[in-house]
Amino acid sequence: MKIKYTLLHKDKNTKARYGTIETNYGKFETPMFMPVGTQATVKTLDPEEIKEIGAGIILSNTYHLWLRPGEDIVSKAGGLHKFMNYDGPILTDCGGFQVFSLAKPKDISEEGVVFKSHINGEKLFLTPEKSIEIQNKLDSDIAMSFDECPPYPVTYEYMKNSVERTIRWAKRGKAVFNNPNQSLFGIVQGGEFEDLREWSCKETVKLDFDGYSIGGTSVGEDKPTMYKMIEYGIKYLPEDKPRYLMGVGEPTDLFEGVERGVDMFDCVLPTRLARHGHAFTKYGKINLRNAKYKEDFTPVDSTCDCKCCKNYTKAYIRHLLVADETLGQRLLSIHNLRFLIRIMEDIRKAIKEDKFLELKEEFYNNYKKK
Amino acid sequence: MKIKYTLLHKDKNTKARYGTIETNYGKFETPMFMPVGTQATVKTLDPEEIKEIGAGIILSNTYHLWLRPGEDIVSKAGGLHKFMNYDGPILTDCGGFQVFSLAKPKDISEEGVVFKSHINGEKLFLTPEKSIEIQNKLDSDIAMSFDECPPYPVTYEYMKNSVERTIRWAKRGKAVFNNPNQSLFGIVQGGEFEDLREWSCKETVKLDFDGYSIGGTSVGEDKPTMYKMIEYGIKYLPEDKPRYLMGVGEPTDLFEGVERGVDMFDCVLPTRLARHGHAFTKYGKINLRNAKYKEDFTPVDSTCDCKCCKNYTKAYIRHLLVADETLGQRLLSIHNLRFLIRIMEDIRKAIKEDKFLELKEEFYNNYKKK
Repeated sequence: MKIKYTLLHKDKNTKARYGTIETNYGKFETPMFMPVGTQATVKTLDPEEIKEIGAGIILSNTYHLWLRPGEDIVSKAGGLHKFMNYDGPILTDCGGFQVFSLAKPKDISEEGVVFKSHINGEKLFLTPEKSIEIQNKLDSDIAMSFDECPPYPVTYEYMKNSVERTIRWAKRGKAVFNNPNQSLFGIVQGGEFEDLREWSCKETVKLDFDGYSIGGTSVGEDKPTMYKMIEYGIKYLPEDKPRYLMGVGEPTDLFEGVERGVDMFDCVLPTRLARHGHAFTKYGKINLRNAKYKEDFTPVDSTCDCKCCKNYTKAYIRHLLVADETLGQRLLSIHNLRFLIRIMEDIRKAIKEDKFLELKEEFYNNYKKK
Repeated sequence: MKIKYTLLHKDKNTKARYGTIETNYGKFETPMFMPVGTQATVKTLDPEEIKEIGAGIILSNTYHLWLRPGEDIVSKAGGLHKFMNYDGPILTDCGGFQVFSLAKPKDISEEGVVFKSHINGEKLFLTPEKSIEIQNKLDSDIAMSFDECPPYPVTYEYMKNSVERTIRWAKRGKAVFNNPNQSLFGIVQGGEFEDLREWSCKETVKLDFDGYSIGGTSVGEDKPTMYKMIEYGIKYLPEDKPRYLMGVGEPTDLFEGVERGVDMFDCVLPTRLARHGHAFTKYGKINLRNAKYKEDFTPVDSTCDCKCCKNYTKAYIRHLLVADETLGQRLLSIHNLRFLIRIMEDIRKAIKEDKFLELKEEFYNNYKKK
């Protein structure tokens, strides 16, 4: 079965939308933030904990799984869900973002991309067909079309060539796509160029995908530019399909994305911050390694309902981090992910009540951007 | 309340004994293996997982907690149980074993031991009184008397002086002990010298502790010598008090210890092995990093009831280890600890049925020592 998106309510004052997505592994509500499970594991969490934090869907990385353990092993295990023992929805990216950060511009041809493995330097070649073939074998619920994700900034000419090629790649990938239980999203690009975003959206929509991803964000542009990139394209995307803003996970960016009509987000930020000892709180980010928490026997965020905040103190988390005990990173990962997922829960509730802007204002008043 | 040991059954054919120990944080059965939570956390596990694997009691390290976060912080948190959010029984060691591995012989005086912090090289001084004071503040259920744990081998003369001093240290520690909710164990030493083990036992028992630890094992001696060290002393220990063999956790050593009358064990081996990718199985230890497990979609040990073996395959665990994902170490830690705790469950059942030797034979026939 393909996924089924149902638009249930539109906020009266913004483009924010509330809906649901049904998959073969259960239904989840949107807008939704997806924890990232790069190598078939959300770093430091087990599948029970992923469920506990209310993750409706997780993301896993095609590039990483292609290299390790290899898509054939995942396939022999019965697909990614069985391999990692996770029975909720999974989305896989196309590998493009990882590949392009390892490739040089001259390595990109019409056929595909040549790059070096980050593990052993081995020369690898990824094509639109290969990306789809790998994802078909991984058997995620949602696969991504192979795109070029150019750095920021590039010239208009570069970007024009790039989006045109990405459309040709999208067609090639769609042509070989062969998994009836998997859905396929197209990716729109175009950088900060309004007409290219429009063109990319329209051409991608013509190919009739099961959903649409907005790419090329969080690659170095400033925030106002990122918000424009969303606006330029999203108006050309169909209302009856989900929209996914790739690689975005700052709390305030979730609000900005939702306000502009985005349904899905993913980002490594919450787990990466956690591994460095940082935590989201209602009042902004804090660094738990700070000596001032040595004797602070209060929770990381007293307004949070996660396992970390309900059971442990800042002093204990700080001790674990300083003593290099992985439980500290795990508890903070759980907290940071739950923090973003709880924002999305609040957002969904607010949209249903046409109170999105009130919620946004309240959140921004507390949350000091650092 | 002090702990209460109840001897419930003695095996007809060996010195193995089945009993229970009541503490302020619940009752557990003996013989029991204690997972080690060095720095107020059993490495990679959270307290729920410690409970799930059936750990009746855990051990935490006085030396490590003294240095980090400091006993005063633990005390301000409400004691070790509250600090680490673990409401089961906890035993603390005396710090001696860690200190002596960092000290040189000339640094040991009648007063105490001078040594360097393993964290920052700072000069530290630990005395019998200080060890007890720290443990009183940590508020564990069972504290250990401060002893010298000499290396193996040492001369008879060295060992004689050492055990005599350890008795004087035991008296000094007992004199300052001041926590009505904590019990105190004495530690017997004497190396491989039968008369010194006898003397150490008799003198320690005269001081009337709540339990007795057998020390100086697993410090380099061969297995037959270790078994003799247990035998030399244990016959002089009272039947109505628990006996704890320190630092021993090889599966076969658990059988050998129980057969000789030991009730409690601890060892970092199961979690340390796990972090290096090794797992106990019914048929011996295996290295999950081995390429032969790449496509092995069976559990680590199909006879095991732990979370790791019930939900994950060798291929997935291997992937996590190779990809350096901490979930791999965590799942193997859970498995290895559960493996030892399950051995103890089987042993307790066998003792109650006077079938300890049958169980031991069956286990040894399967388990190939590596």
